[in-house]
Amino acid sequence: MEVLGGPLFGVAGAGESHGPAIVTMVFGCPPGLWVERTQIQHYLDRRRPGSNKLGTPRREDDQVALLSGLYSEDHDQLLSGPALHLHLGEGETPVRTYAAGFTTGEPIAATVLSAAKRSSDYKQFAGPQGHARPGHTDLVKHYKSRGFVDVRGGGRSSYRSTISDVIGGTIARLYLAEHFGTAIFSSISQVGPLETGLSLAARVAELVESNGQRLSPATCAALESELERGALRTVDADFARQAAELIAKTRKARDSVGAALEVVAVNVPPLVGEPLYQSLKLRLMGSLGGLHAVQACEIGAGHFVAARRGSQNNDPIRKDGYQRNSHGGLLGGVTTGMPLVCRLSFKPTATIARPQNSVRKDLEEIEFQLAKGRHDPCVGVRAGATLESRLAIELMNAVLMHQAHSMDVSNFKLF
Amino acid sequence: MEVLGGPLFGVAGAGESHGPAIVTMVFGCPPGLWVERTQIQHYLDRRRPGSNKLGTPRREDDQVALLSGLYSEDHDQLLSGPALHLHLGEGETPVRTYAAGFTTGEPIAATVLSAAKRSSDYKQFAGPQGHARPGHTDLVKHYKSRGFVDVRGGGRSSYRSTISDVIGGTIARLYLAEHFGTAIFSSISQVGPLETGLSLAARVAELVESNGQRLSPATCAALESELERGALRTVDADFARQAAELIAKTRKARDSVGAALEVVAVNVPPLVGEPLYQSLKLRLMGSLGGLHAVQACEIGAGHFVAARRGSQNNDPIRKDGYQRNSHGGLLGGVTTGMPLVCRLSFKPTATIARPQNSVRKDLEEIEFQLAKGRHDPCVGVRAGATLESRLAIELMNAVLMHQAHSMDVSNFKLF
Amino acid sequence: MEVLGGPLFGVAGAGESHGPAIVTMVFGCPPGLWVERTQIQHYLDRRRPGSNKLGTPRREDDQVALLSGLYSEDHDQLLSGPALHLHLGEGETPVRTYAAGFTTGEPIAATVLSAAKRSSDYKQFAGPQGHARPGHTDLVKHYKSRGFVDVRGGGRSSYRSTISDVIGGTIARLYLAEHFGTAIFSSISQVGPLETGLSLAARVAELVESNGQRLSPATCAALESELERGALRTVDADFARQAAELIAKTRKARDSVGAALEVVAVNVPPLVGEPLYQSLKLRLMGSLGGLHAVQACEIGAGHFVAARRGSQNNDPIRKDGYQRNSHGGLLGGVTTGMPLVCRLSFKPTATIARPQNSVRKDLEEIEFQLAKGRHDPCVGVRAGATLESRLAIELMNAVLMHQAHSMDVSNFKLF
Amino acid sequence: MEVLGGPLFGVAGAGESHGPAIVTMVFGCPPGLWVERTQIQHYLDRRRPGSNKLGTPRREDDQVALLSGLYSEDHDQLLSGPALHLHLGEGETPVRTYAAGFTTGEPIAATVLSAAKRSSDYKQFAGPQGHARPGHTDLVKHYKSRGFVDVRGGGRSSYRSTISDVIGGTIARLYLAEHFGTAIFSSISQVGPLETGLSLAARVAELVESNGQRLSPATCAALESELERGALRTVDADFARQAAELIAKTRKARDSVGAALEVVAVNVPPLVGEPLYQSLKLRLMGSLGGLHAVQACEIGAGHFVAARRGSQNNDPIRKDGYQRNSHGGLLGGVTTGMPLVCRLSFKPTATIARPQNSVRKDLEEIEFQLAKGRHDPCVGVRAGATLESRLAIELMNAVLMHQAHSMDVSNFKLF
Repeated sequence: MEVLGGPLFGVAGAGESHGPAIVTMVFGCPPGLWVERTQIQHYLDRRRPGSNKLGTPRREDDQVALLSGLYSEDHDQLLSGPALHLHLGEGETPVRTYAAGFTTGEPIAATVLSAAKRSSDYKQFAGPQGHARPGHTDLVKHYKSRGFVDVRGGGRSSYRSTISDVIGGTIARLYLAEHFGTAIFSSISQVGPLETGLSLAARVAELVESNGQRLSPATCAALESELERGALRTVDADFARQAAELIAKTRKARDSVGAALEVVAVNVPPLVGEPLYQSLKLRLMGSLGGLHAVQACEIGAGHFVAARRGSQNNDPIRKDGYQRNSHGGLLGGVTTGMPLVCRLSFKPTATIARPQNSVRKDLEEIEFQLAKGRHDPCVGVRAGATLESRLAIELMNAVLMHQAHSMDVSNFKLF
Repeated sequence: MEVLGGPLFGVAGAGESHGPAIVTMVFGCPPGLWVERTQIQHYLDRRRPGSNKLGTPRREDDQVALLSGLYSEDHDQLLSGPALHLHLGEGETPVRTYAAGFTTGEPIAATVLSAAKRSSDYKQFAGPQGHARPGHTDLVKHYKSRGFVDVRGGGRSSYRSTISDVIGGTIARLYLAEHFGTAIFSSISQVGPLETGLSLAARVAELVESNGQRLSPATCAALESELERGALRTVDADFARQAAELIAKTRKARDSVGAALEVVAVNVPPLVGEPLYQSLKLRLMGSLGGLHAVQACEIGAGHFVAARRGSQNNDPIRKDGYQRNSHGGLLGGVTTGMPLVCRLSFKPTATIARPQNSVRKDLEEIEFQLAKGRHDPCVGVRAGATLESRLAIELMNAVLMHQAHSMDVSNFKLF
Repeated sequence: MEVLGGPLFGVAGAGESHGPAIVTMVFGCPPGLWVERTQIQHYLDRRRPGSNKLGTPRREDDQVALLSGLYSEDHDQLLSGPALHLHLGEGETPVRTYAAGFTTGEPIAATVLSAAKRSSDYKQFAGPQGHARPGHTDLVKHYKSRGFVDVRGGGRSSYRSTISDVIGGTIARLYLAEHFGTAIFSSISQVGPLETGLSLAARVAELVESNGQRLSPATCAALESELERGALRTVDADFARQAAELIAKTRKARDSVGAALEVVAVNVPPLVGEPLYQSLKLRLMGSLGGLHAVQACEIGAGHFVAARRGSQNNDPIRKDGYQRNSHGGLLGGVTTGMPLVCRLSFKPTATIARPQNSVRKDLEEIEFQLAKGRHDPCVGVRAGATLESRLAIELMNAVLMHQAHSMDVSNFKLF
Repeated sequence: MEVLGGPLFGVAGAGESHGPAIVTMVFGCPPGLWVERTQIQHYLDRRRPGSNKLGTPRREDDQVALLSGLYSEDHDQLLSGPALHLHLGEGETPVRTYAAGFTTGEPIAATVLSAAKRSSDYKQFAGPQGHARPGHTDLVKHYKSRGFVDVRGGGRSSYRSTISDVIGGTIARLYLAEHFGTAIFSSISQVGPLETGLSLAARVAELVESNGQRLSPATCAALESELERGALRTVDADFARQAAELIAKTRKARDSVGAALEVVAVNVPPLVGEPLYQSLKLRLMGSLGGLHAVQACEIGAGHFVAARRGSQNNDPIRKDGYQRNSHGGLLGGVTTGMPLVCRLSFKPTATIARPQNSVRKDLEEIEFQLAKGRHDPCVGVRAGATLESRLAIELMNAVLMHQAHSMDVSNFKLF
């Protein structure tokens, strides 16, 4: 099933890039969490292609409508979300969607309608004579589905599907923030051959060193502002400038470029994650490493550990906690309370405007030349909101799994 | 998670009775099945409270909008479903929803907006001073959710949630019909103390005897018409009349009444169902028996088998098949190809207008008296469409599970 | 997957009737529960065919060996379970299995080796010329598996597979007893046409009326003794005698007979069960109703509710609790704290020694005559331990699910 | 639940390092696959610590006993596996386990008894005064389980748990080999700072270039021999020598060292993997990246893609297939038929004999000094068999998922 996370907290998604809507269900949020539509919209705005000047020129409004799972005695506030109308013949069914309320424990459904669609761009890809883009899923999905595939805008395999991740991830971050003060950040660390010398993990380690393992809301907010300063979301302003230039240049060259991102969570509840086959490490590797275009997922010191000796890599422990974080916040797949640290490498956007050797779907050879449509020259740079969301979803599920084992009979009382 | 069926074919639902919408996702339909919106609407219309004159007087349009998972090269037809508009400030985002297309294997999302809502009716139930209806889930859900519960119209526990079952069930029946000619029927067999002497199972057994084990589409259509004749959906026209009278009388007495239904599938593919812990018998008992207000689920000869001897109960086998159907189409939890036969007993609608001993949610004792709102006097009589749907969902999942084991390497070919 | 319960507490089983062993894994028991091997053996002994004089004459020792998931600093006690030796060539690997320890949260694995096997009895069923027993899964499993099926003793579909249910169920009952004082009983209420007038549900209702909703351990123990008195496990001693006679007579007549059982849990934690698609009602209907040979599952007043009016069926509520238990302890699929009440109807044992019309697996018609082997004339009467176990498994999973939502940050503390 | 893979093909494991046994269940193998115990033992022997002279000196026999899920009319051959005896009081229950048979579709259970245990070594870790090893899961598991943890030999978190992976993985590779000729290899590519210049992926690419995309059994066998030549399993004999020296030196220095491995599958069925949230990429990233001690998982060109331009990274397509394999056999999470290519980085073994800053479990600070016990200086070098197994498990599950969508009504025939 199309579900991320779970079995306790999970997110289901549906919807194709150029279909009517992306639909999302968020399962398993405990009752009593205050959720506002604008909080979700905030992260959706960060996810949106047009949200920075380097992304795809396609403009999408991506306004979320919340359709279930919230409640509040204040019906006026509850129901002050955008109105949704269904036009059928003469009839019209107007409903007010939710603006703010408490979670009830029931599934939270949300829809984001799809506005700007130029599906004519995608005739090039339709049918057995349609072209297959190198680096893309066009060819395998055509055969896998025996031809029954939505070719408009990449169909379900489009990055647009990550709207569901962000909606679910926002619920999770609100919950984690309320109970543990958890905050989740991401920073671009590489664009093509350009690499920053300043890592987010190192920046957070500094903050932890000077502020203690628990960062205050103010410290978290300051770090967030720092990340939002530049054209690209990164801790390194100089790198941001150079990387933005490289992306612009790459776009002009009708090419694309890869990237790498760090994702870091602070104020992480310790002791969560089931050992072995459902460990939080396994789940994060899958969930983050499984995102579109990711080719590598690293935790803590990542691939650098292969070159190390144990005496270098083991993080010493003192009574106030771990003294280093090579382990990236996870030992044996269980959180230690140190920041969770992940690094993801993204391949360059597959869709480029340069000629390439390819085939039609019936395997006739062609020189592929993109007819129309413009795309992100660097998909990686806007993946941050999604990666943070996926981390939040898995962390929240692990929190609930751990809580399930901590029996308190006072939770089972009626009369 | 709020998922029915699965792991291969499953249906997720969200949405409260008086919330903005019921949202549905259908997972795992193989690519290439032709689906029309009106086919789904047909079964939704059958499910709807106002669909017979005996149900609740609340009128709900329940028009479905299909938002994902279908595709067709004929974009005009594909996109000729009702338009959906989101009104936010000045902006408006109009999209066309799907009218007809082929499944793509991706999740099919659907939404049914909620039109007629008189939530003022439900002030009686709000907050710690709210009243708890005897026979209802009010009290347990209040404590389970620590008070964070949508009390309008029964919230998520309303029968309205079964819209999702019917949407998913329709996809499943279309698939089963296309591949196996499977047809699924239900018939009311009891309303209060009134019981019919004509069972649907017996009616189907007659048809099988005279037509062979495989019923033609015409025979199925004729049986369907027979069931749709009366005020109540049943094979017994006399019983229908008397039962309708009893329901009308019960309504006047401000009381409610129980009912029993049979559900029968014909042209059932044999050999499906995983033995033991995920057997189709286990799944049907759970899925059908777990429906709101059901207190008993019986398969084949049901509770009558307890009184029998083996020599009576074992169904003889000849080279053309089983000669009787005490087993109700399942042996060892696996289909035999004989009709699947289930019988469900529904309790009387819990919400009645007569005074009853009860408590407020804070446990202060009251004489409960329904303030406003009207309800079905007999929930059972409109459960047929939902029961048929749940059977279809489980049967389809079992079909895909069986198919997974039948390796054919030609399905794994690209170049 | 062959898993009962879950996702938090679940039981996996493997092993065929005449294979080397029944193997069981119990997942998700929280750490810290004291478990003794003899406690599990106690319920396995109750499950065993030879455990009453009416069952199958096959003697099986069914001694359980615990292989993982327990620990105690007292290694001597921990390791004082039966020794297990593997003989391979010259080598021998002796290990001590577990006798008693605390659960660690890791999976608990257990094995029950199969001693008495007379597989020669089953030549009659082997291969395409093998006979298919009416009422049995022989024929469908032969075709489903394309002939690759273990025909010895019913293979995996044998009642012997329920050893896993009982092992998992014992862990669950120990946990529920420790935290809530929950006790689970079963009583035979019908054998063939003989029905008792004394129901276990009514007996428990009396005890609740005179002792308050919470029954003491002594009261529970007394009820348990009452049930264990006779030749059959039932609250009605007269009925036990008559039923035992009927079973003996049926055996002589080389026939078999059906039965019905009640299963009742007391001191049930309220508020557990997820509403709707994973409700505890749905799960119990599936798990209990899905057991071998069960054709009907009823909860609370069961199929009798169909004949009732709402004013009769709704259970009044006072400040000290529900005043009746038509609802059988579940409203909206959530526990109310009242006793959980289920009733199951079992078909007569399919394997009988009388001639019956049947086919070979290649569909050649035969008069089927059992060559060898003897079987329970009434499978239902020894299903009690398994039904109680399945109820315990589902209840425990529901308890953990509820607990997961009750966040207590003190459970997330390391430094 | 402790399950790897699934929902169609999955492996459950139980058992602690020094407990009586590692127990395994393999779910979902279709009926009809011929399996021999020695085939499973072959891969278990490769997994075993003592299987190369560089690993831990602990000798474990790790003889597998197969307890269910196989069948063959030749009972003598079927039952010629090692005998298993249970010694309880006077009694003894000897059973013959399985040596060879066809799968039946039922779960395959296996047990590996634990022979050599020196649990006295682990007193250092017991109780609240027990020491926590830096880099180890000791501390988090102690708090997570509230002290109820098996500290002997790492308990369940030991590498010994991977016996289950290998048993399940062997069933999967047999199935994939039979239907598709799939073969799976692994090669060590880095030990500490030593890196090979010869990659397995490149070696396989050469073979594909000269032999066509489908490698013959002979070619696969030759590659396998090539890998087995040296002290370490790797395509580079010179590197093997140097790496072996480095490991020996590191052991003498009482330290440990990291490593990296490649895992490559050839003759991979195309079109398998569910897009998005359950894509094969997501599943492999999780399953391989989630293995003990892994800190990085890379697919195809891995982290190198971040530095590339799209025009470099997109693999051209011609009518006979993909012309390069930067994508590592997966596009959009679906197999292309090209070799699956993964690379894993392992941290150095956490347990080392040098003094380190640490704490007791009650957080009192200590200088940790390993009292007894010896460990692998380089866990990575023996992870190959496990990684190959995990890849096989996920690939097989994906194959069955794809097959489920390819309806063939002839698979649903009884009479």
